[in-house]
Amino acid sequence: MDSKTTLEALKRQVRKFCEERDWDQFHGPKDLSVGLITEAAELLEHFRFKSEDEARAYLKDPKKRKMVEDEVADTLFMLLRFAQMYDIDLAKALKRKVALNHKKYPVHKAKGSNKKYTDL
Amino acid sequence: MDSKTTLEALKRQVRKFCEERDWDQFHGPKDLSVGLITEAAELLEHFRFKSEDEARAYLKDPKKRKMVEDEVADTLFMLLRFAQMYDIDLAKALKRKVALNHKKYPVHKAKGSNKKYTDL
Amino acid sequence: MDSKTTLEALKRQVRKFCEERDWDQFHGPKDLSVGLITEAAELLEHFRFKSEDEARAYLKDPKKRKMVEDEVADTLFMLLRFAQMYDIDLAKALKRKVALNHKKYPVHKAKGSNKKYTDL
Amino acid sequence: MDSKTTLEALKRQVRKFCEERDWDQFHGPKDLSVGLITEAAELLEHFRFKSEDEARAYLKDPKKRKMVEDEVADTLFMLLRFAQMYDIDLAKALKRKVALNHKKYPVHKAKGSNKKYTDL
Repeated sequence: MDSKTTLEALKRQVRKFCEERDWDQFHGPKDLSVGLITEAAELLEHFRFKSEDEARAYLKDPKKRKMVEDEVADTLFMLLRFAQMYDIDLAKALKRKVALNHKKYPVHKAKGSNKKYTDL
Repeated sequence: MDSKTTLEALKRQVRKFCEERDWDQFHGPKDLSVGLITEAAELLEHFRFKSEDEARAYLKDPKKRKMVEDEVADTLFMLLRFAQMYDIDLAKALKRKVALNHKKYPVHKAKGSNKKYTDL
Repeated sequence: MDSKTTLEALKRQVRKFCEERDWDQFHGPKDLSVGLITEAAELLEHFRFKSEDEARAYLKDPKKRKMVEDEVADTLFMLLRFAQMYDIDLAKALKRKVALNHKKYPVHKAKGSNKKYTDL
Repeated sequence: MDSKTTLEALKRQVRKFCEERDWDQFHGPKDLSVGLITEAAELLEHFRFKSEDEARAYLKDPKKRKMVEDEVADTLFMLLRFAQMYDIDLAKALKRKVALNHKKYPVHKAKGSNKKYTDL
């Protein structure tokens, strides 16, 4: 589905769900950011005290994988809702940020390095 | 752009950026989850100790708004990269989760309420 | 008990618990930071989509309050374990940081203000 | 100092700093939880995309170590302030939680294992 689904279509889906429940009143920018970080924490929690190898193996267990995908979906939901409520064009914002990161992480310096741009 | 941009196109963009820098080696599921939560924290930090009214006003200042959009973009980047690296169809995952939430938050119970489903 | 309990005594308690389980091998600085943030998220989750008034009322319900205290304790556990494993004198670190914050937030500027020091 | 400093003394220090600035009005339970998680994220950010070996080496660089200690101190500040504002006896809460964890993670099952109690 990712090959055909636009961000606009996803935003519409999220909006419909929330408006049917009359939730605009609870979805201030701060509360949606809280929603986003707590969902990101639920994703991260799956990998606590695990090595990356264990984390990768975890994703190969279909039951665990489904749980992880659910957390990823929850995070995406919050992000889309934030963008929809506060008029952020995500594709445009991403494009601008990637262009900026091209400068912060030029290929000849960043290639094969895990350093932060401030340490490059 | 959101009206025309598919998730697949966004994933391609993120993948290209990371592969040019040979970053697959650093992008385990755990590290990308760490990346996601720290970016979500940078978004939330803009609203610390502010009321929702202040947070909304903050978004009307063009300079502040740009900074917020950059954090939203960083969060989206990490999410897309996670999905691209670990073969998650985001549109499908979101659809499944929204269907599940329809059951957890039925309209007749959840309408106008900010309660968690466990308290509904 | 807070009036009599030293940080050293708390560190000892946390250390004993972890060493009995042979957990030093899992408690790298990164993993303990992941532990800390995920516990902080569980605390925050209690207040999602609630106003501060609702959050305060929540703390007056003895059952809810106990759950919140448990999350606070989990966060403290991770913090103490980090300090114990990596030789951080917490009282000293706090004193130094508070002195620094006196300069970042001088009383005559910060009094009654919720602004970040960069905006003061 | 940790060998002599009680939690009560630390709480007093944090309280004094905040009351001098008239900050009780901003320190609801939700906002302090937001404060805590964003500080925990700043700590975690030091270790992004690093292995545990790299994270340990990072702590041996005195300049980096000082930055990490500052983040740990900020996290402790928020935790102490939460406990002070909302009357949580931290030593008591920790003791209760450790006792509970003794049951969730019995030594004979948890020894040498990084599994979550639900998977033990």
